Amino acid sequence: MPPPGSNCNPSMCPNRDLNSPPFVYGMTLQPIEPPGQDFILMADSKPLPSLDWDPVAAEALLRDVFGVVVDEVIWKGTSASEKVCEWKEPEELKQLLDLELRSQGESKEQILERCQAVIRYSVKTCHPRFFNQLFSGLDPHALAGRIVTESLNTSQYTYEIAPVFVLMEEEVLKKLRALVGWSSGDGVFCPGGSISNMYAVNLARYQRFPDCKQKGLRALPPLALFTTKECHYSIKKGAAFLGLGTDSVRVVKADERGKMIPEDLERQISLAEAEGAVPFLVSATSGTTVLGAFDPLEAIADVCQRRGLWLHVDAAWGGSVLLSQTHRHLLDGIQRADSVAWNPHKLLTAGLQCSALLLRDTTNLLKRCHGSQASYLFQQDKFYDVALDTGDKVVQCGRRVDCLKLWLMWKAQGGQGLERRVNQAFALARYLAEEMKKREGFELVMEPEFVNVCFWFVPPSLRGKQESLDYSERLAKVAPVLKERMVKEGSMMIGYQPHGTRGNFFRLIVANPALTQADMDFLLNELERLGQDL
Amino acid sequence: MPPPGSNCNPSMCPNRDLNSPPFVYGMTLQPIEPPGQDFILMADSKPLPSLDWDPVAAEALLRDVFGVVVDEVIWKGTSASEKVCEWKEPEELKQLLDLELRSQGESKEQILERCQAVIRYSVKTCHPRFFNQLFSGLDPHALAGRIVTESLNTSQYTYEIAPVFVLMEEEVLKKLRALVGWSSGDGVFCPGGSISNMYAVNLARYQRFPDCKQKGLRALPPLALFTTKECHYSIKKGAAFLGLGTDSVRVVKADERGKMIPEDLERQISLAEAEGAVPFLVSATSGTTVLGAFDPLEAIADVCQRRGLWLHVDAAWGGSVLLSQTHRHLLDGIQRADSVAWNPHKLLTAGLQCSALLLRDTTNLLKRCHGSQASYLFQQDKFYDVALDTGDKVVQCGRRVDCLKLWLMWKAQGGQGLERRVNQAFALARYLAEEMKKREGFELVMEPEFVNVCFWFVPPSLRGKQESLDYSERLAKVAPVLKERMVKEGSMMIGYQPHGTRGNFFRLIVANPALTQADMDFLLNELERLGQDL
Repeated sequence: MPPPGSNCNPSMCPNRDLNSPPFVYGMTLQPIEPPGQDFILMADSKPLPSLDWDPVAAEALLRDVFGVVVDEVIWKGTSASEKVCEWKEPEELKQLLDLELRSQGESKEQILERCQAVIRYSVKTCHPRFFNQLFSGLDPHALAGRIVTESLNTSQYTYEIAPVFVLMEEEVLKKLRALVGWSSGDGVFCPGGSISNMYAVNLARYQRFPDCKQKGLRALPPLALFTTKECHYSIKKGAAFLGLGTDSVRVVKADERGKMIPEDLERQISLAEAEGAVPFLVSATSGTTVLGAFDPLEAIADVCQRRGLWLHVDAAWGGSVLLSQTHRHLLDGIQRADSVAWNPHKLLTAGLQCSALLLRDTTNLLKRCHGSQASYLFQQDKFYDVALDTGDKVVQCGRRVDCLKLWLMWKAQGGQGLERRVNQAFALARYLAEEMKKREGFELVMEPEFVNVCFWFVPPSLRGKQESLDYSERLAKVAPVLKERMVKEGSMMIGYQPHGTRGNFFRLIVANPALTQADMDFLLNELERLGQDL
Repeated sequence: MPPPGSNCNPSMCPNRDLNSPPFVYGMTLQPIEPPGQDFILMADSKPLPSLDWDPVAAEALLRDVFGVVVDEVIWKGTSASEKVCEWKEPEELKQLLDLELRSQGESKEQILERCQAVIRYSVKTCHPRFFNQLFSGLDPHALAGRIVTESLNTSQYTYEIAPVFVLMEEEVLKKLRALVGWSSGDGVFCPGGSISNMYAVNLARYQRFPDCKQKGLRALPPLALFTTKECHYSIKKGAAFLGLGTDSVRVVKADERGKMIPEDLERQISLAEAEGAVPFLVSATSGTTVLGAFDPLEAIADVCQRRGLWLHVDAAWGGSVLLSQTHRHLLDGIQRADSVAWNPHKLLTAGLQCSALLLRDTTNLLKRCHGSQASYLFQQDKFYDVALDTGDKVVQCGRRVDCLKLWLMWKAQGGQGLERRVNQAFALARYLAEEMKKREGFELVMEPEFVNVCFWFVPPSLRGKQESLDYSERLAKVAPVLKERMVKEGSMMIGYQPHGTRGNFFRLIVANPALTQADMDFLLNELERLGQDL
C-alpha cells in the first residue's frame, strides 16, 4: 500500500472505471462506516475507490521483496562463504525483530527492512552446510511452483475452484503410485507425514470396523497395532489423537541396524491376541529418522498376509529412493503394502510441505471413511462430475495445494534428473563414511545404508580411552558442545541425539542436491577444528 | 537448471572454489554412481561440481516466473475486465496441461509456458468477482510474507531451525489472544480450522480424562459433545477421526437465524447424561459457514460454567470481527471460552493457510496432551531454553510457518487498517442487501448479520408465483443454472447450496478488501443479465 497522498494512476488500475477522475490514494476515501449500528445505508451511493487495492503499489512492493529474496536467499543463503545461521539469544532476537503488532501501519521501506531482518536471522536450510534435518537445499523449480501456488491461493477441495490442481494432484499421485508398483489406487496430499500416518491408521480401523465412524471406539474390541521403537513418533502421537491410546501401539523388536525383526512381529501379534486385543495394522518404516533403516518389507508383508493385517509403510523419508534403479531394492515388497506415506519435501527438495498418502484401495475407502457429504460445499447438482471433488477424502476442509511444486520440479528435472540426485546423495554419504574411517577422530555408529550418517566425533582427549569407565558418558557430552559451537559460529548445522543405550551422536543428513565432495571434506575438517581443544 | 552445455560462471557461483577452472554445466559431470553395489569409494576424490545448483540459472528462472506472476496474477488476475476463471471440461483441461511426468526434463522455456498455463486455467481467487469462498482477494504484504516463507523453507518445530518464526508465532498468537480478551494463554497455528477444532476436542477430553492418551477411549465412559447443525462439518469429521464416533455429537437446536438456543443446549446436556454419556465440550460457532450466524456466547458460557464443560468457539470465519470496535459485540462472551479457532486466512486475506488455535490454558496442556518427548528431535541438553521448542505442542512433526504472512500484513496495515477492512466488508454486505430489496428479482433468505449474503435470484418466469405449488422446487433449480452460466462465461463466481428445508440459494461472501460498491452493483446486474431468460 502506498502512503496516503501517493498517486494511483487509474490507467494502470484495471479494476477502476477509466472515465472517473483520477484519485489520490488515501485522500478521497469515504470509508463506509456505519455510525453505531449495523444496518445503515451509505449516504453516497457512488462507487467508492477500493480501500485496499493498488496494483502499481502491489507490484512495486512484491518486486522489491522478491529482490531481497534473490539477494539474501538465492545467493547468500546458498553460499558456503556465508553463515548457515546468525545465532541470537531469544531475548536479543526479540529486540532486533521488534515483533509487536501495533495499530499504526508501516511504510514500504520499513516493511522491506523487516523482510531483510527475518531472512538475516533465519536458518538457511538451503545452505550447503545445513545437515540438520531430513530436508535441505533449494530447488528453483520447486520454489517457482511454490510462488505460483501462493499467488493463486486456492484450496484443493473442489474442481470448481481448483480445476488445474485437482487434475494435477491426481496425476502426481498416479506417478508416485506407479513407483510403488501400483497401476491403480487412491491417495491424497496431507499436511505432513504424521497426518499421513494417522490417515492410514484411521483407514485401516475403518475398513475392519466400519461402525467406528459412527459409534466410536467404545463399540469396538481393544485394537493393537505394531511397529518398532525406531518408528517415527507420530505413530504413538497418532494412536493418542485417534483415541486408541498409546498402549495400543505394540513395540516389535528391531535388529542392531534398526530393522524390524519379522519373527518378533509374529510373536507380538500372538501375544496381543492372547491378551484379548485385535491386531489390525502393522506400520513398517522405510528410512527411519535416526539410523535411516529400512524394514524388511517382504517378510513383514508375509506376516500381514497370513494374519490379515493392514500393512502401512511409513516411507516419508525413504520413499524417494524408489526413483533410483540402483537403490530401490531397499524398499522391495512395498507394492504389497495397503498404504504408503511418502514425503517428497524431504529427499526430493520439493519444499515444506509435500506429503503424499498413497493407497492400494480402489473401493473409495478414503471418501467412505472421511466423508461427511456437507451439502453446502459438495453440492451434488453441479454441472460437472462431482467425483472430481476431493474434499471428502480428507478430514480437513480447506487444503493447501501441495502438488504443483513437485510437478513443476519433476517436469524440469525429469525422472532421470531426480534419480541422479538420489544416487548422488547415496554416493556422497558413502564417501563421507569412508573418509571418516580414515580419520582418527570419527567413529561410525554403523555403516550407513541410506543418507543418514551416524557418528561420534571423538575429541583428542578421549582418543584411545575407549576402555575408560566414563568414556561413553564423556563422549555423550561432546556433540552438544560442538553443536553449540557450530551454531554460534554459523559454520554448519548437524543434528545429534541419544539413541537407545547409546549416548549422543551426530546424525548427518546428505540430502541437499547441491552438495559436493568438497562440502563433505569441509564438514570433517570443521568438526576437527571445532573439537580440537576437547 | 540450464540445459547441458550452458556456462556457469564460477565467479558468480559462491559455493564453488574460485581457483578451480571454470566448468561447463552438464559436460564435466562425473556422477558418483556406485556400479552395482552401495559401498564403493569414488575413484576420483577431487571435489566434483554440484549436480544441481547454479544460482545464475536459479535467479533467471525465478525472475521469469515472478514476472509471469506479476503479469498474470497481480494485474490480470485482479482485473475486473478479465475472467475470474477460464472454464474447461476436465478432459479438455488434461489435454491442455499435458500433466504426465516423464523421464526427460524440460527446458526453461517449456517450464515458463507451463507456469502460464497453470495460472491461465486456475480460478483467480483474488479477482473482484470471486465471491465463492470464505476467502478472496490478494493482500500484497501477506503474499510477500508467503514468498519469504517459501524461500526460507523451514519447519516451525524448534527454535534451533526456526528462531525468528518461533518468537514471531508466539507474538502473533499473543495479539490474537489479546483480541479475544486474554492476557495469558497458549496456542499454535494448525493446518486449517478443521484440525484446530479437532485439537480443541482432543484437549478437552484429555483435560477431563488424562488416561485417554495412554489407555484410549475404551477406558473412558461414553462422551458427548454439543453443537448445532449449523456448525462446521469438521466437528463431526473430527469426532469420527478422534475415535469418539459421530454419534457422540449431540445436535442442539438453532433458531431461525442459525444461532444456538441455549435452553436447548441445557436440555441436550441433561438428555445425554440421562442416557449415560458424559458431556465434556460445547462447540459454539462465531460465523457459521452458510448463514454467517454468531451463537450467543454469553448464554452458552453460562451453561458451560454451570455444567463444568469445556467451551470451544469455532470462530474460524468470524474471529476476525474481533478487530472491529463496531462489530465485535457479535462475539461478546468469547473471553469466557476455553479454546478458540480463528482463521486469519479467511476475512483477513492472510493466505491459505493461517489458522490459529488459541487457548486460555496456562498449564502447558498442549504439550502435556500432544507431547511425546521424542529425544531425537527435542533434546533436553541443548544450549538454549528448550521450552521455546513448539514441536511437542502439536500432533504433526514438521509444521509450516504460518505466522509471517499475517505478521507482515499486520505490520503494514496496522490494526487500524485491518479494522477498516472488516468494517468495509460489513458495510458493503449491508449495501448489497439493501440494493437487493430494491430490485424485483432478489429475495433475501434473511437480513445478513455478517458478510454472508444469502439470497435467491427469482427469474422473471417465477416472479409473482410464490403461491404456486412447485415454486420452491423450481426456484431451487435456478442457482445451479446461473452458476454454470457465470462460470462458463467467467464473469463471476458465487456459491450456492440447499440448507435445511430451503432449496438452493446463493451464499455470497464479501471478503475481498479490494471490493467497491461498483462491484456490488455489477454482480446484481450480472445476475439479472444471466437469468433474464429463465
